[in-house]
Amino acid sequence: MKLEQRLSVSILLLLCATWSANGGNILVWYTEGSHWINMKPLLETLIDRGHQVTVLVPSSSMFMNTSEPSRFGYEPFNVSVSKESVEDFMKDFLHFTMNEMDHMSYIQIYIRFMDIMKASLKNSLKFLDGVLKSESIMKKLKEGKYDLLLADPVYPGSDLISEILGIPLVFSLRFSLANNWERHCGQLPAPPSFVPGAMSKLTDKMDFPERLWNFLFYALQDIVLDNIFWKVLDKYYSEVKGTPTSACELMGRADIWLMRAYWDFDFPRPFLPNFKFVGGIHCRPAKPLPEDMEEFVQSSGDAGIVVFTLGSIIKNITTEKANMIASALAQVPQKVLWRYSGEKPATLGANTRLFDWIPQNDLLGHPKTRAFITHGGTNGIYEAIYHGVPMVGIPMFADQPDNMVHVQAKGAAVTVDLNFMKTEDLRDAVNTVINEKSYKENALWLSSIHHDRPMSPRDEAVFWIEFTMRNKGAEHLRVQAHVLTWYQYHSLDVLAFLLAIVLILVLLFVKTCSFCFRRCCGRKGKTKRKAE
Amino acid sequence: MKLEQRLSVSILLLLCATWSANGGNILVWYTEGSHWINMKPLLETLIDRGHQVTVLVPSSSMFMNTSEPSRFGYEPFNVSVSKESVEDFMKDFLHFTMNEMDHMSYIQIYIRFMDIMKASLKNSLKFLDGVLKSESIMKKLKEGKYDLLLADPVYPGSDLISEILGIPLVFSLRFSLANNWERHCGQLPAPPSFVPGAMSKLTDKMDFPERLWNFLFYALQDIVLDNIFWKVLDKYYSEVKGTPTSACELMGRADIWLMRAYWDFDFPRPFLPNFKFVGGIHCRPAKPLPEDMEEFVQSSGDAGIVVFTLGSIIKNITTEKANMIASALAQVPQKVLWRYSGEKPATLGANTRLFDWIPQNDLLGHPKTRAFITHGGTNGIYEAIYHGVPMVGIPMFADQPDNMVHVQAKGAAVTVDLNFMKTEDLRDAVNTVINEKSYKENALWLSSIHHDRPMSPRDEAVFWIEFTMRNKGAEHLRVQAHVLTWYQYHSLDVLAFLLAIVLILVLLFVKTCSFCFRRCCGRKGKTKRKAE
Repeated sequence: MKLEQRLSVSILLLLCATWSANGGNILVWYTEGSHWINMKPLLETLIDRGHQVTVLVPSSSMFMNTSEPSRFGYEPFNVSVSKESVEDFMKDFLHFTMNEMDHMSYIQIYIRFMDIMKASLKNSLKFLDGVLKSESIMKKLKEGKYDLLLADPVYPGSDLISEILGIPLVFSLRFSLANNWERHCGQLPAPPSFVPGAMSKLTDKMDFPERLWNFLFYALQDIVLDNIFWKVLDKYYSEVKGTPTSACELMGRADIWLMRAYWDFDFPRPFLPNFKFVGGIHCRPAKPLPEDMEEFVQSSGDAGIVVFTLGSIIKNITTEKANMIASALAQVPQKVLWRYSGEKPATLGANTRLFDWIPQNDLLGHPKTRAFITHGGTNGIYEAIYHGVPMVGIPMFADQPDNMVHVQAKGAAVTVDLNFMKTEDLRDAVNTVINEKSYKENALWLSSIHHDRPMSPRDEAVFWIEFTMRNKGAEHLRVQAHVLTWYQYHSLDVLAFLLAIVLILVLLFVKTCSFCFRRCCGRKGKTKRKAE
Repeated sequence: MKLEQRLSVSILLLLCATWSANGGNILVWYTEGSHWINMKPLLETLIDRGHQVTVLVPSSSMFMNTSEPSRFGYEPFNVSVSKESVEDFMKDFLHFTMNEMDHMSYIQIYIRFMDIMKASLKNSLKFLDGVLKSESIMKKLKEGKYDLLLADPVYPGSDLISEILGIPLVFSLRFSLANNWERHCGQLPAPPSFVPGAMSKLTDKMDFPERLWNFLFYALQDIVLDNIFWKVLDKYYSEVKGTPTSACELMGRADIWLMRAYWDFDFPRPFLPNFKFVGGIHCRPAKPLPEDMEEFVQSSGDAGIVVFTLGSIIKNITTEKANMIASALAQVPQKVLWRYSGEKPATLGANTRLFDWIPQNDLLGHPKTRAFITHGGTNGIYEAIYHGVPMVGIPMFADQPDNMVHVQAKGAAVTVDLNFMKTEDLRDAVNTVINEKSYKENALWLSSIHHDRPMSPRDEAVFWIEFTMRNKGAEHLRVQAHVLTWYQYHSLDVLAFLLAIVLILVLLFVKTCSFCFRRCCGRKGKTKRKAE
């Protein structure tokens, strides 16, 4: 018997297959720094798969260069903040975290930090103005017939725009402070007893004081963010929409949250069907090094090399610190490749070479690489995990200290403090991660976890972006928690009701008893009195 | 420059690839009925991938036939329960759910249900005795050098055996009553406000009374299971191990929980990294029908066919009910294929044909199939979802009513009650799901969700089974919640501590105030008195 063309499922599958050939039209929200570095490889893959990618670029962007030849379409827009003032703001922030903080009390740090957050949000809203309040840009976006908005929510407003344009929204997020956005807007459960808040510098193994601190950490950050972030954003959103609007609720409408972490780096935790963990989305196999660099690397012999960079933002440090670091590096038997564009330190050893730029991923994937000295940015850490390289962390700001706590807890890194370390601390740290076998073994174990999963993180991210476009959303992955109030979510109304019932029953019981008692004793009393 | 053989990661990946060629040695825990039907295709796939599969089979198994030619190795063992008494037990259970329940009060049903559960556990422990207390079987298992134990935990004891053998454990589970095992042993979070308990017949959209009921449902089932299940099991495990042992804790050591559900059928809910949702693991494309069946199906013309079965356990119903059903089916314009081995009903229409057995999946995947009348077992529902067929549910026992609530909530089914329905109810239900477009559309939408995921459920299950063997466990996916007590998990100790601090502060404040007040007023008082 001939097989008939069987059922609608085949048609559906066919639809899915042909879909990617037709290609979707993706709008990408502006972002900056390492966030943009991380986003680019994903966009490249989307273009490889036949999608059209258009990136919103603010006029004052430091990292997004629209004049560079690229396969992305760019949609530039003007903002009232100059590039210089953005750079100044960044410099101020770095100066605060790297120099000022050591001489300040916790309260002072907190107040300063809140000021910075307020200023940052103010700037962000000026960027958002550049899109939302520009008639020509909004017209272009509406006429662009985009299928999806892809955004790193670190720059707010993408949720509002996606709603105005009526298109699905996919987030790519590393984390928010104390996971405030994921918890309150995304409904991600996070019991403080074993889920350390992002930036808390805690692991998932907590004793009582740590659990107490984690609990307070969540609560305190929630209060701070409510007051300096959500209040401002709610006001802005309400003004734009002309009706009271909760920005957090709008953020919660995102169809998919692509979280840039995985269980190689993050601690296992509860999550939701529309949260996909795609840490290492930007990683790729190493390519050959430039010839002169390869020559230098090969000259290291069996000792191998150490790769050292403080990331894409920090290019220079003080002369004093540079000298201290250089003299530590001079004492290790490896050759060292140091990305550093400051003045050549006087103590620089013959084994150390300075570079304005290094092909970090290719170096980390080189078989001669023994260790990676890093500021602890997620991108770099993930490249080291990908290639199984143990790390020495010199974390400085933002998520870096917290990131290093993760890798250190997993036994693949040693952390030193830039402000307090001495020459021998750095030297010993490098020697430790290279000579103590466990560090390399753990780095390889993390690498194995990273690679041994059903799908590469980039493929998984692409899958869910395409899924969302194909299905015009991902409503079936959204928990009903989104429609509950906080007291409903925690069943506090149910508990209150049950408690009320119990109280009423107890009261009824007591009243009945006392009534019976009074009737009984009352009669006796009366009888007694009569008898008297 | 020549590319050197780059890094350990390539070696790791190579290891993963070559590994499946070498094949693992998998021990499979005994199971029964639809659980076994569901397990078989997974085992077939594991064998296809080069693994050795050995299945433990009790002497009184109803469904596992060791004399049938098969590619599995069988490890038969004797149990003190006869096949007849297992069958009698099943008959009793069916009689209770299908006939007795309607004439009983809730309390009576509950008491009877608890008796059944107690008897069932008693039987299960006799099965476990057959493995654990047989020296020869235990010797064989120890010498078998198994890499992994794969178990449907519906028959308890696999966790104990996996611990004794010192091998990783992977569960394949549909659910436990009120998700008691997943929540308490697996640490799966389940806020009662939006996660309906399994068997509660609730959806994720609950109003206040429903949330109240769900809350009580969880609590009540937990109390019942604590008393009639865990207490007994703890005692058994403790006796075997010679030390106080928590059976739930042992169950929680499972490396991976393969949950036989997905967001096509289940409501979205929080889950954990070691919970993988592989609903529809047994589904496959339809194969051609036997020639005479295909002829009958083709004779239906444009009207198409209706497929009707009450599952692998129910083969007959009362004559009265059979007549009522037959007369309903006689009134639909479709041809009906009814799996029924009882006496031919007098009211059987010319459009209905009875079969002792039907190739259910192949029929559901046939382009002429318009509807599926089902008892609501998960296997059948998943086949209907796979092929996008709307359903009429006649649920009877176990998870069937709850299953039908799910598909009905998703708009792909209508449910009727076997005990109370009339001829026209069934006829109307069939006509509704066939003629009202939305049912077919929703069934196709569920089918689309089912198919449109990164990996097929069977591939995903196989991946995690192989992963667990490759890595001798999956510790990195296990949340730290496992080591916390219930009050630590919910931060109640932290809250109590904070409350205590607040109380002390308030008390100190009140004491200080009253002290000051007394000093002040006291003096005044003294002065006054002196003046008097």
